[in-house]
Amino acid sequence: MATDQNKFQAIISHCKEYGFVFQSSEIYDGLSAVYDYGQNGAQLKKNIRDYWWKSMTQMHENIVGIDSAIFMHPTIWKASGHVDGFSDPMIDNKDSKKRYRVDHLIEAHAETLPEGNRDELIAKMNELLAADDLAGLKTLIETYKIKCSVSNTANWTEVRQFNLMFSTQVGSVAEDASEIYLRPETAQGIFVNFLNVQKTGRMKIPFGIAQVGKAFRNEIVARQFIFRMREFEQMEMQFFVRPGTQKEWFAYWKEERLKWHKSLGIDPNKYRFHVHDKLAFYADAAEDIEYEFPIGFKEVEGIHSRTDHDLSRHQEFSRKKMQYFDTEINQNYIPYVIETSIGLDRMFLLTICDAYYEEDLTKDGKEDSRVVMKLPAKLAPVKLAIFPLTKKDGLPELAKELMDKCKPAFHCFYEEKDAIGKRYRRQDAIGTPFCVTIDHQTKEDNTVTIRYRDSMEQERVPMDKVKEIVLNKINE
Amino acid sequence: MATDQNKFQAIISHCKEYGFVFQSSEIYDGLSAVYDYGQNGAQLKKNIRDYWWKSMTQMHENIVGIDSAIFMHPTIWKASGHVDGFSDPMIDNKDSKKRYRVDHLIEAHAETLPEGNRDELIAKMNELLAADDLAGLKTLIETYKIKCSVSNTANWTEVRQFNLMFSTQVGSVAEDASEIYLRPETAQGIFVNFLNVQKTGRMKIPFGIAQVGKAFRNEIVARQFIFRMREFEQMEMQFFVRPGTQKEWFAYWKEERLKWHKSLGIDPNKYRFHVHDKLAFYADAAEDIEYEFPIGFKEVEGIHSRTDHDLSRHQEFSRKKMQYFDTEINQNYIPYVIETSIGLDRMFLLTICDAYYEEDLTKDGKEDSRVVMKLPAKLAPVKLAIFPLTKKDGLPELAKELMDKCKPAFHCFYEEKDAIGKRYRRQDAIGTPFCVTIDHQTKEDNTVTIRYRDSMEQERVPMDKVKEIVLNKINE
Repeated sequence: MATDQNKFQAIISHCKEYGFVFQSSEIYDGLSAVYDYGQNGAQLKKNIRDYWWKSMTQMHENIVGIDSAIFMHPTIWKASGHVDGFSDPMIDNKDSKKRYRVDHLIEAHAETLPEGNRDELIAKMNELLAADDLAGLKTLIETYKIKCSVSNTANWTEVRQFNLMFSTQVGSVAEDASEIYLRPETAQGIFVNFLNVQKTGRMKIPFGIAQVGKAFRNEIVARQFIFRMREFEQMEMQFFVRPGTQKEWFAYWKEERLKWHKSLGIDPNKYRFHVHDKLAFYADAAEDIEYEFPIGFKEVEGIHSRTDHDLSRHQEFSRKKMQYFDTEINQNYIPYVIETSIGLDRMFLLTICDAYYEEDLTKDGKEDSRVVMKLPAKLAPVKLAIFPLTKKDGLPELAKELMDKCKPAFHCFYEEKDAIGKRYRRQDAIGTPFCVTIDHQTKEDNTVTIRYRDSMEQERVPMDKVKEIVLNKINE
Repeated sequence: MATDQNKFQAIISHCKEYGFVFQSSEIYDGLSAVYDYGQNGAQLKKNIRDYWWKSMTQMHENIVGIDSAIFMHPTIWKASGHVDGFSDPMIDNKDSKKRYRVDHLIEAHAETLPEGNRDELIAKMNELLAADDLAGLKTLIETYKIKCSVSNTANWTEVRQFNLMFSTQVGSVAEDASEIYLRPETAQGIFVNFLNVQKTGRMKIPFGIAQVGKAFRNEIVARQFIFRMREFEQMEMQFFVRPGTQKEWFAYWKEERLKWHKSLGIDPNKYRFHVHDKLAFYADAAEDIEYEFPIGFKEVEGIHSRTDHDLSRHQEFSRKKMQYFDTEINQNYIPYVIETSIGLDRMFLLTICDAYYEEDLTKDGKEDSRVVMKLPAKLAPVKLAIFPLTKKDGLPELAKELMDKCKPAFHCFYEEKDAIGKRYRRQDAIGTPFCVTIDHQTKEDNTVTIRYRDSMEQERVPMDKVKEIVLNKINE
């Protein structure tokens, strides 16, 4: 078995080789920290997105979905705190002109120290970061004589904050043109639509608003494949509750979200909750759902109790009353909010990592192996592959009949070339849960061989039953 | 009946009042030419997107979908011609500082002329636009003494080209930072992934690659609600064919796409094909599918025979061989392309306009009316509304039972307040095809009243049959 770092590299290669994820603009030598989803990845990603959307909106009578634009009024990002606060401390080496994220620079140096000293340095750094003490960080770098890896000098600039939002100019008329940002999160699109949705949807508290969409962050050091990208997709839900009830709703959503992950059949031992050490000043509680990737435990989803902070800020900046009249207690208030926020691309990576197996199939001294993606059937890009054993004797016609019956219900794949074993392995590699082979016996008794991806077992079933077998598994 | 312009305004108001479309950032007084989709609009838009995606990918064995990023390598837009050619001629009035799109300025003036002169002016303008004759356009404006509506002077600057792409800076390190564009179309994301998809997907010509996604254009004059926005969503498919076969495939896709529109039950008399007067220099054929909106016939979708232009340009700029080896004729070639390109937001607007009815229900001298959205059942945001007649006597429990049975299969809505008639009307307004009322008789014989949106007819059916009735209609 490969080591974990090797496994991660193997997964990245597999994603490229089987049309899951390509480097963006690859024929132009790529665009850093941006990726494209290929023919199998796009479908897997869509299936995850749709499953989340259905779980959140269709299955919860008191949650509705919206789809707000990436472009928003720039004042929104003042109100949300992103204009002033959404930044990383950076430092430049004057000789090499290389720019570093301060925490990365210090962490890299800490790695070179003995354990005790290392922990001490990291603790000091975290304290200064939490206090936004830029001068203190500079002093720390000087005290430890940290050098630039390019110039090998310690000739540093001051530490400065670097904002992570992308900006662009909208409007063509010079005097009308204004700088706007590409949203760094989808949540604010929900907050600014709170009144419209509550009123036109006649929503009663507690209720939620969900949305899925792109967000953009100009990450200084984007890395680890699709784990941290400059363009990514979020699935967020803001749940509006009566003040005072937020603790119970926080507990509810923690449990509900973990249940969602487990409902996909993902290994439950690879999940854990991480309680935030430091809360934002307005926050009531915050925990992450972490998953054990081959590169270690990492955040996949956050559950945050945000009090009335966001709506209050928008009330202050927009001067619109962000209030709700609660008929049960005859009171007006700004609702409290529990947020669930999951990265779609990270969930994609999690799904892939959890599904990826290199299996040794050596038997009776005959060496054999396969790479199989044991994807949850409901997420697999292709549900059923249909193979006529040969290209003649009317077998393709029978196979096409089955295709026509099944393809309106789920995604099917047809192939008539190469040995059946080879065709099975290609479907294993993209995670197709079922393959069906049509052979000469089919012409006699209308049965086919169904082959199960995970067990590799095969059995003879009536062709008429195939659609039902697949549907039952998908809807499990 | 309202006039057409009034009808369009009524539809815009309806979209806002019933949670379909909100002005973006409305509490901050809006962001021009950007809109957010509310709780009903987001679901309707998703249903249109999913229906297109399924028709294109799942139902066509030789079409796969991808999901490429909005951020792309900037050279791609040089290769595609957008850096040099994707612009509108503009002119500024020196007194008012107001900037105009030249064609809009001239068209507005033409409206004030008698018919013959008007047509003559428009014809001259079109000729100059086609020839990219900026000086000629300036002379035309001077000859007709066209004035600025603000300053009322004819004191104009030269005519200049204004590029419609949004740009932003990516990367934080000064020497690495580069200007990139927000993609103005999704098609190039398909072309630059052609090799990756063809190879990893083992695709054989003819085959297609489809994708849905956001695109951005800094429109000078964005108008007509969601018809022309600065941020919008495209559904595009590039179909790669053997050179010489493009005419038959162009005809195939024209028919196939019109069939798709008609499969939604949209009024077929409101569609027409518009043949492009002037083709791009590389194009073989180009036609639009137009729909008669309340504001007139407008383009919804384009079908374009693009030859090998795009792939050739990318071969030239990337120096990667964009070739396909055709085993049937033993030849290497750059494939020809038929493109189908439809605006998701325009399709949304079309669906809304086609579905919107103000009905006079006056009967026996008793005045009554309703607004009903006769949306195709498969696109309606809510499929089934379930109403207990009263809030007691165990009726809500029976209604909840039906909810639990139906909601995993399609989107349901539950409501127990207000008179049944009022509840029906609210569902009419959002286009829910079926309402079911649970009353005291239900407790005795397990039947319910089902009410059909379009006919307003009601009938008694077994509660057990409701799910099937709705599913049959959705899957029709």
